Amino acid sequence: MSAQAEDSDDSRVQRIRDILASGAVREASRLLRTLAPAEIAHLLESIPPAEREIVWNLVDEEHDGQILLLVTDEVRAQLIRHMDEEALLAATENLDLDDLADLVQQMPSAITSEVLQSLDDQRRKRLETVLSFSEDTAGGLMNTDTVTVRPEVTLDVVLRYLRRLGDAVPVSTDKLFVVNRDDGYLGILRLSSLVTRDPEDTVAEAMSLAMQPIHADMSASDVARRFEAHDMLSAPVVDEDGRLLGRITVDDVIDVIREEGEHQFMGGAGLSEEEDMFAPVLSSTRRRALWLGINLATAFLASWVIGQFEETLSKIVALAVLMPIVASMGGIAGSQTLTLAIRGIALGQLNASNARALLVKELAVGTLNSLIWAIVVAVIAGVWFQSGAIAILIGVAITINLVFAAIAGSLLPLFLERVGIDPALAGSVLLTTVTDVVGFLSFLGLATLFLV
Amino acid sequence: MSAQAEDSDDSRVQRIRDILASGAVREASRLLRTLAPAEIAHLLESIPPAEREIVWNLVDEEHDGQILLLVTDEVRAQLIRHMDEEALLAATENLDLDDLADLVQQMPSAITSEVLQSLDDQRRKRLETVLSFSEDTAGGLMNTDTVTVRPEVTLDVVLRYLRRLGDAVPVSTDKLFVVNRDDGYLGILRLSSLVTRDPEDTVAEAMSLAMQPIHADMSASDVARRFEAHDMLSAPVVDEDGRLLGRITVDDVIDVIREEGEHQFMGGAGLSEEEDMFAPVLSSTRRRALWLGINLATAFLASWVIGQFEETLSKIVALAVLMPIVASMGGIAGSQTLTLAIRGIALGQLNASNARALLVKELAVGTLNSLIWAIVVAVIAGVWFQSGAIAILIGVAITINLVFAAIAGSLLPLFLERVGIDPALAGSVLLTTVTDVVGFLSFLGLATLFLV
Repeated sequence: MSAQAEDSDDSRVQRIRDILASGAVREASRLLRTLAPAEIAHLLESIPPAEREIVWNLVDEEHDGQILLLVTDEVRAQLIRHMDEEALLAATENLDLDDLADLVQQMPSAITSEVLQSLDDQRRKRLETVLSFSEDTAGGLMNTDTVTVRPEVTLDVVLRYLRRLGDAVPVSTDKLFVVNRDDGYLGILRLSSLVTRDPEDTVAEAMSLAMQPIHADMSASDVARRFEAHDMLSAPVVDEDGRLLGRITVDDVIDVIREEGEHQFMGGAGLSEEEDMFAPVLSSTRRRALWLGINLATAFLASWVIGQFEETLSKIVALAVLMPIVASMGGIAGSQTLTLAIRGIALGQLNASNARALLVKELAVGTLNSLIWAIVVAVIAGVWFQSGAIAILIGVAITINLVFAAIAGSLLPLFLERVGIDPALAGSVLLTTVTDVVGFLSFLGLATLFLV
Repeated sequence: MSAQAEDSDDSRVQRIRDILASGAVREASRLLRTLAPAEIAHLLESIPPAEREIVWNLVDEEHDGQILLLVTDEVRAQLIRHMDEEALLAATENLDLDDLADLVQQMPSAITSEVLQSLDDQRRKRLETVLSFSEDTAGGLMNTDTVTVRPEVTLDVVLRYLRRLGDAVPVSTDKLFVVNRDDGYLGILRLSSLVTRDPEDTVAEAMSLAMQPIHADMSASDVARRFEAHDMLSAPVVDEDGRLLGRITVDDVIDVIREEGEHQFMGGAGLSEEEDMFAPVLSSTRRRALWLGINLATAFLASWVIGQFEETLSKIVALAVLMPIVASMGGIAGSQTLTLAIRGIALGQLNASNARALLVKELAVGTLNSLIWAIVVAVIAGVWFQSGAIAILIGVAITINLVFAAIAGSLLPLFLERVGIDPALAGSVLLTTVTDVVGFLSFLGLATLFLV
């Protein structure tokens, strides 16, 4: 167990890339067999589409399903496109039901109905249950592989029951679910309790009542927060009558948390968290073109504002030189407030009740910072253009813009959230529009009033 | 188990806020006692400092330690500042060793040595082990509460051993670690195997060898990727000789993943993932001032570039009106590429070996998009200012800037990573500098060459 063995994941992926580049397909195939499905998924996401197809054809078919689950939506769509019906059906075998549900939803509908027909009655029913919930709810995240026990039996009976089940008990089982005869959820029996308590105790004595079940309609991000708050490994999912439907395991919650983080980060640049780094040029161009178009509209708006002051600009060309500074300072300050607010909303820590407190604080921070930097910029601009009037003008304009930036940065994301627009996606475009327009308007407007 | 009970976390927090606002302290205190430590931590992060102190004084002291662990660094520092030595010592009681290590590192050093003295020999030694590793390594994440067994004993013996340990077995135990007589790591015994296998089997027969141990020096983000790739609930941590030091549990990994996501998102605005939404105005102003100052320097650089063309601008004022469009389009396009590259680096999917492939693709996307939007902007600008020359000029400048944006967006983050600068923090400032300078330079430069 040397340090080298520890770090081998990345270097093995690197070696495969090198081997592929040199065309030694058999050697690459041998190496691929030493990788876990997750490592192959990681490799597939790290290479361009052409290499991706070569690797995908070399992968052992029995891992196809696992790997398809692990790659992002875009890469998955690309891989599925090149598989025939038989291979697709084979890929759906031996998957957990929650995974199968995820995969089936992205396959051609002809395949979906074939998959459903290939399942036994019980599994089909369960799959239909999971499919009936939206992907981003507890019901969509859950698996139906729960092991349930009754409260009145002894732990010894439970142990004998589990031994009879044998491999049918999922490896990831950390707790059993205690239900009444109608499948009504009562509580949990942790394996750690099962193995430490007296075998003569009953389940009722050893079980924990502290875990509140998750309703199938709960949003995936609320589920994630619940898991984080209580350090849970798995949790029961119930229907509106409290009947146990399945369980959510922490590995699926980790995916939710990873995606939430990527959504915020990538949304700011108008990208989806599912964006493939090596997406085909044409589809990538099309998606980005939309975002550039939206931003172009706001840029023209700012230009139009500047255009209203053509006469002023033609008289004092220094204004043209300095005006980007006013807009830029507002944009930077506003984006800091905006970022804080978007995270607060995502964590459920910012809403109408404390928006006022945030606004007051951000206004104070914005005002203080605007005074500091208004003075700095005024001095530099005044010396540069040898003009006290320009110095005062730009100082005042920066102060105005930073105050507006604090207001827009605090309230805009809450407003967007309220009207159902994703602040992570639309926030920064709109904020920059505000700070550009206010910046140019205040600077050039004041100049027109007082300098011309 | 109604839907209402499910959603009560947020509404209870809201109720406490309302009650605090109305000054009914006893009522608030009663409600606080119904909240779990994680919920109180969430509440503390959601309210301004003044209310925070009131709530903190109402919290049951026995939960102080748990809550301090759950809030962000900044909020923790604020809460600790108002605690006396006795309260701080009390807060460190009954914590897991990994948690204790986290907490102790942020307390005054006088407290740290007192805490160390208050521990028994074994616990002190273990704490010193954990403290000897950096917080962002496997060693810093690990806990020493492993339950170990020998390979030669039977599962029945293991079960009896666990019953004797009783409550000393951590609730979060999902597996036991199999070691030789020198504490050398051999493999794992899942509780799910323990309870499903024949009690007469030996540990050696029932254990799994598939789990590679994690070296104590491995970085926290590599640990997180390992957990994600293999859906692990807990994993063994070993020293360089393969001796078992402790285990990492998935709840700590979730914190790492959450923080990584927030780091990328907040770093782009020059904020730390530990930033408190209600940080005191002065400290918040100071931190933001630094970021604004850095950005101001780059804004002045752009201004200086514009200043080189004062004469051109004074002759054709339309250039001043249109120039922000050229800079803005470059900034937007570049930030899309940059965002993709930063995520690729963070996931370990982008490095020198595939940088070329990304660059080629981004150049193709950038060129295509620049052609589309160059034409659109040229037509609009040409009609607006009734000038074919200006139309051609802005079209060419936008094309140049978008090509540079694709190059800078692809290569800049890799370069920063190589020289040890965090791309999530510095990437967007530097990228905007490039796109501003190239945008203004190409637009005004070409105008000076061909129009004046």
